[in-house]
Amino acid sequence: MSNAETLPLVESDVEPCCPPLTERPLSAEEAVRTAAMFKALGDPIRLRLFSLVASHEGGEACVCDISDVGVSQPTVSHHLKKLREAGLLTSERRGTWVYYRVAPSVVAAMGKMLGQFAA
Amino acid sequence: MSNAETLPLVESDVEPCCPPLTERPLSAEEAVRTAAMFKALGDPIRLRLFSLVASHEGGEACVCDISDVGVSQPTVSHHLKKLREAGLLTSERRGTWVYYRVAPSVVAAMGKMLGQFAA
Repeated sequence: MSNAETLPLVESDVEPCCPPLTERPLSAEEAVRTAAMFKALGDPIRLRLFSLVASHEGGEACVCDISDVGVSQPTVSHHLKKLREAGLLTSERRGTWVYYRVAPSVVAAMGKMLGQFAA
Repeated sequence: MSNAETLPLVESDVEPCCPPLTERPLSAEEAVRTAAMFKALGDPIRLRLFSLVASHEGGEACVCDISDVGVSQPTVSHHLKKLREAGLLTSERRGTWVYYRVAPSVVAAMGKMLGQFAA
């Protein structure tokens, strides 16, 4: 089996949520779901890792591509897993490495919640 | 002095930051500043309060307008203060109450960081 062979993508099972925040107050249940996504980006190392994946060539990166955030590779893996669990990244194993990509629909939904404010 | 008199607005001293996350990786310093904003929305109660302020009539609300999130008024005040400290809300005292508004430039900058992902 070649390392380059593409195995099935592990899709995020987190559903994007919710209307723009100016539209109506969030319900308690919506707030729980959505706060978990914001919380995942609420750590400086995780946010840097997220931006590294998002801006990496081809829109994907593995731990092997990330070495300059000042934490160990197991810590990088741990944070990438947290971002995946929050639905912000999807992952795909190819050979030795797990490759991560941004989950565009989830992240776009978060942006839409905030993006209606004119700067 | 009338309660309706408008006193000077307490502007947020948090600068909006950064480019879209697909553009380039964040620096460590940018990530620290920006993660604090995402973290402020990473709590379900705070996120609900934020949406209550954002969607309230006239775009502003005081603690006196918020009563149905299942926590005490001092706790509501505490969370609104945290959102203000993170730069996401501005505040203005009018008479007895402090009124909160969304800081549009900061929240728009957060939306812009995320919003370039096609859903």
